[in-house]
Amino acid sequence: MADEELARAVDFLYEVGLLKRYKRTGWVVAGVAAPESIADHSHRTAITAAVIASMEGADVQRAAFLALFHDTQETRLTDIPYIGKRYLKAAPNTEVTADQTAGLPEGLAEVIGDAVGEYEAKESAAAACAKDADKLECLMQAAEYREQGTDTQAWIDSSLASLKTASGKRLAEEALRTPSLRWMHEAREARPAL
Amino acid sequence: MADEELARAVDFLYEVGLLKRYKRTGWVVAGVAAPESIADHSHRTAITAAVIASMEGADVQRAAFLALFHDTQETRLTDIPYIGKRYLKAAPNTEVTADQTAGLPEGLAEVIGDAVGEYEAKESAAAACAKDADKLECLMQAAEYREQGTDTQAWIDSSLASLKTASGKRLAEEALRTPSLRWMHEAREARPAL
Amino acid sequence: MADEELARAVDFLYEVGLLKRYKRTGWVVAGVAAPESIADHSHRTAITAAVIASMEGADVQRAAFLALFHDTQETRLTDIPYIGKRYLKAAPNTEVTADQTAGLPEGLAEVIGDAVGEYEAKESAAAACAKDADKLECLMQAAEYREQGTDTQAWIDSSLASLKTASGKRLAEEALRTPSLRWMHEAREARPAL
Amino acid sequence: MADEELARAVDFLYEVGLLKRYKRTGWVVAGVAAPESIADHSHRTAITAAVIASMEGADVQRAAFLALFHDTQETRLTDIPYIGKRYLKAAPNTEVTADQTAGLPEGLAEVIGDAVGEYEAKESAAAACAKDADKLECLMQAAEYREQGTDTQAWIDSSLASLKTASGKRLAEEALRTPSLRWMHEAREARPAL
Amino acid sequence: MADEELARAVDFLYEVGLLKRYKRTGWVVAGVAAPESIADHSHRTAITAAVIASMEGADVQRAAFLALFHDTQETRLTDIPYIGKRYLKAAPNTEVTADQTAGLPEGLAEVIGDAVGEYEAKESAAAACAKDADKLECLMQAAEYREQGTDTQAWIDSSLASLKTASGKRLAEEALRTPSLRWMHEAREARPAL
Amino acid sequence: MADEELARAVDFLYEVGLLKRYKRTGWVVAGVAAPESIADHSHRTAITAAVIASMEGADVQRAAFLALFHDTQETRLTDIPYIGKRYLKAAPNTEVTADQTAGLPEGLAEVIGDAVGEYEAKESAAAACAKDADKLECLMQAAEYREQGTDTQAWIDSSLASLKTASGKRLAEEALRTPSLRWMHEAREARPAL
Repeated sequence: MADEELARAVDFLYEVGLLKRYKRTGWVVAGVAAPESIADHSHRTAITAAVIASMEGADVQRAAFLALFHDTQETRLTDIPYIGKRYLKAAPNTEVTADQTAGLPEGLAEVIGDAVGEYEAKESAAAACAKDADKLECLMQAAEYREQGTDTQAWIDSSLASLKTASGKRLAEEALRTPSLRWMHEAREARPAL
Repeated sequence: MADEELARAVDFLYEVGLLKRYKRTGWVVAGVAAPESIADHSHRTAITAAVIASMEGADVQRAAFLALFHDTQETRLTDIPYIGKRYLKAAPNTEVTADQTAGLPEGLAEVIGDAVGEYEAKESAAAACAKDADKLECLMQAAEYREQGTDTQAWIDSSLASLKTASGKRLAEEALRTPSLRWMHEAREARPAL
Repeated sequence: MADEELARAVDFLYEVGLLKRYKRTGWVVAGVAAPESIADHSHRTAITAAVIASMEGADVQRAAFLALFHDTQETRLTDIPYIGKRYLKAAPNTEVTADQTAGLPEGLAEVIGDAVGEYEAKESAAAACAKDADKLECLMQAAEYREQGTDTQAWIDSSLASLKTASGKRLAEEALRTPSLRWMHEAREARPAL
Repeated sequence: MADEELARAVDFLYEVGLLKRYKRTGWVVAGVAAPESIADHSHRTAITAAVIASMEGADVQRAAFLALFHDTQETRLTDIPYIGKRYLKAAPNTEVTADQTAGLPEGLAEVIGDAVGEYEAKESAAAACAKDADKLECLMQAAEYREQGTDTQAWIDSSLASLKTASGKRLAEEALRTPSLRWMHEAREARPAL
Repeated sequence: MADEELARAVDFLYEVGLLKRYKRTGWVVAGVAAPESIADHSHRTAITAAVIASMEGADVQRAAFLALFHDTQETRLTDIPYIGKRYLKAAPNTEVTADQTAGLPEGLAEVIGDAVGEYEAKESAAAACAKDADKLECLMQAAEYREQGTDTQAWIDSSLASLKTASGKRLAEEALRTPSLRWMHEAREARPAL
Repeated sequence: MADEELARAVDFLYEVGLLKRYKRTGWVVAGVAAPESIADHSHRTAITAAVIASMEGADVQRAAFLALFHDTQETRLTDIPYIGKRYLKAAPNTEVTADQTAGLPEGLAEVIGDAVGEYEAKESAAAACAKDADKLECLMQAAEYREQGTDTQAWIDSSLASLKTASGKRLAEEALRTPSLRWMHEAREARPAL
């Protein structure tokens, strides 16, 4: 690998790190005191994509991989809230990704570009699962913030309405019925303390 | 999918969400004021694994998938700092994962269990890339916190020393030479404002 | 005042309140742990505008008034960082202000619209002072964050370079020579404890 | 301008910057997790003063200007909560302002001193509007924190009770009937996404 | 005192300082946005121990002293949440304390070791008061977070159930009936403003 | 215990809890992003008092007890910074304590009142140790914030200058020579991982 490609790879990883510092704008608008980052959201979205893909019979690993990169363009676009979309015209995600991956070792740029392209095209089963994962993750986070005192009903409603897959919808309905810490109470009872 | 499996899938996703709230303990020890979460770390680790795997000729998507789950056990184990490892004996990660995925639709539990097993076994090329991604990500984060004023040299040193792959090492050396916002300054010059 | 106008006035004030929750994006990029809000910045900008206008012989109160509203469009546009301006095309501030003040009692909409229009036109002496106040305020905040450990040199340089008025430039040079807490140490010595 | 006056002007602006770091004490008492700063409060208070003055037929720009400085003394007095007023005897705001502006170019010290004097005297129409803006702003912030989960009823009650102008009272009643994000939902419907 | 003992004393005090940076894990799990530190908890626990001991006729100063050190081992063990106790086997607190105080001037190590030993043995009246103080403090904090919007019922229930002393129980029941800011409203009425 | 006394005891403990939410004002002034609370400071001050008392041959438990309450008046007085002491005249701490403990079971009010009285009188050996603990704790915290990037030299200097006991001075000098995490690096080497 050429020195220049190495430099670009490091730049790319530092750029991706900005997603830890950028908070999800919607939660700032809602008044959440310590909102999650874009990276926080993206991590659970990738795992959610794996879950939905498994239930839908789609490619689990592919769906997770698409989800991993689904908001990486926001290092340059920021996380524009709904209201902002009335006033800001954004370059397409595929174009941003092309800029972000320019100069990377060719195989890598292609792998990332293909993933973003597939996600944005919304055609493959894996893309459908990753898209729904983005929405379901948002709904679950909204439910958690609601438990913690903030009114997030608008986010729950809009996330729920935009789900497309059968599994995504079933999971969303179940999530809205489930206290977010039920897993912990059940896990505590299932196993004695050491 | 049975109702019970659906409930378990939702529980699993809520459990994974705790990784957003848990901060990386090392940075708390170092005195970082607003430290990243485990999910923050895991997101960039997965992308870093993809980069290293691409450079090492390993399975890119597999490496990212392993990295995605590499700290998911910390919902139950917490992120034990080095000093804590002298005083706490932890159950193996594979055992924690088995508990976390119990009751999930069988295919899903297997997919996750296999990923964690492969990562912990440290034998496959993808696992080696994901492991190094965990360390390289930590090193880059330490370098960023150093730019922001905190003394993180001990974390840089120990991360650097534990890298195994040639690509991981080259990336680490380059990362330590690179200001973390260089990508942004270069990107600004490469493209005019709209 | 009609009920509808009253409702619009309340909506407008709630909208302005979002500027308290939105953090200045540049500082998030720089890695500041607890960055100031847009409202924080706007408050000192307004007072800075008064200071510059006083030194420049411009209308002090007018300059402060212009500065007060100079970022109010960011409730809808968000605070787009430099890199984002390569990828996002924003509606003009005057258009956003028109939407924000639609339905307000006519006199009020006009007063605010005129202030924003004058600021954006960059022609009056008061506007020049308010513009420089925006930059000087950023430079002083950058100097404060630098004292607190974060590397903000890029923000200091770009703010300094964009100053236009003689007073703005003199104040900036003095600010860069001045420890930000000098005022307090001097005030403590100037007056005995009660 | 003499060098000494320049130094004082810079000191004054650094001093004002402390209002960004000082949180409003009442919200800390109430248990708000990430409370607004005094500067945050002052920014919306100034705009609120403009709105009330417009409705009351008072001098809009003057009211905003008075509000801009109404809490600037708190760099030296801090934001004493109600309970503290039983145990602390504070120097008058006008005296603090005199100290803060000592050595500033004479015109500037006079402009600021006059504004603080007028505000504290509570006699002019502009001062009445700025005073009510201080209270109305607090009420609206309390309503926002209430939506976000914290019990702030005591602050709503005391703010409401202290309003003096007819417009301040009408705005307060409307604000208590209005969800704080109504403006955004209406703005989204009023304009298509780009 | 030998130089080496002086060094150990300083190390010990820096170590104790980590309790300010470590947040109480339970509140992180519950989703509290800005959770208290272990030191925060320990401070009120010590005062609570004094109150309970006074009511129980136990040694007030001793109970406070035991409480002061009751969580100091968590610099090395961290604050393991309930779920973690299923997966982590911890060294005994007395052993951790022995390591922490090794090399301190002998009298000091003994004083601290005795206090921790007495607390862990759960036999003395002072230890019983300090133990209950730990639980009562947690219950009161849970009640405060509940007022601030977070669902903390599980913590209230488990704290209440684990109280042992009559005074601890009476205080807990009274605390659950009492708004956490009642003291302030009463204090304000009891004394005129200066 | 009468119901009224029980109510007062609960009020007192809720009042003390405010010390967790109040941040130490000096660090806010210095620009520390996430400053410690008064309770944080008080906890280490109490342990520091025990250490100094042990070295000075004073009553260890008494010194810790005095330190525990040394800032409890700040629930009503707030933590007035140095500059504020030029503009605010505060009621004596003993008077505040009398108000805070009014109505408590008589023995308890006396115990607390005696402790505060002894501390404020500055005459006993235990009080001298507790006073120095207050200063030494501040110095060590300043040293830690300095390692984390903030300029706190003024706090180090003033704390150092106000120490009175020989042990306090020796500890301070050693603390300024010691990296705050040395204890951890040494503890890690002294004991193998489990």
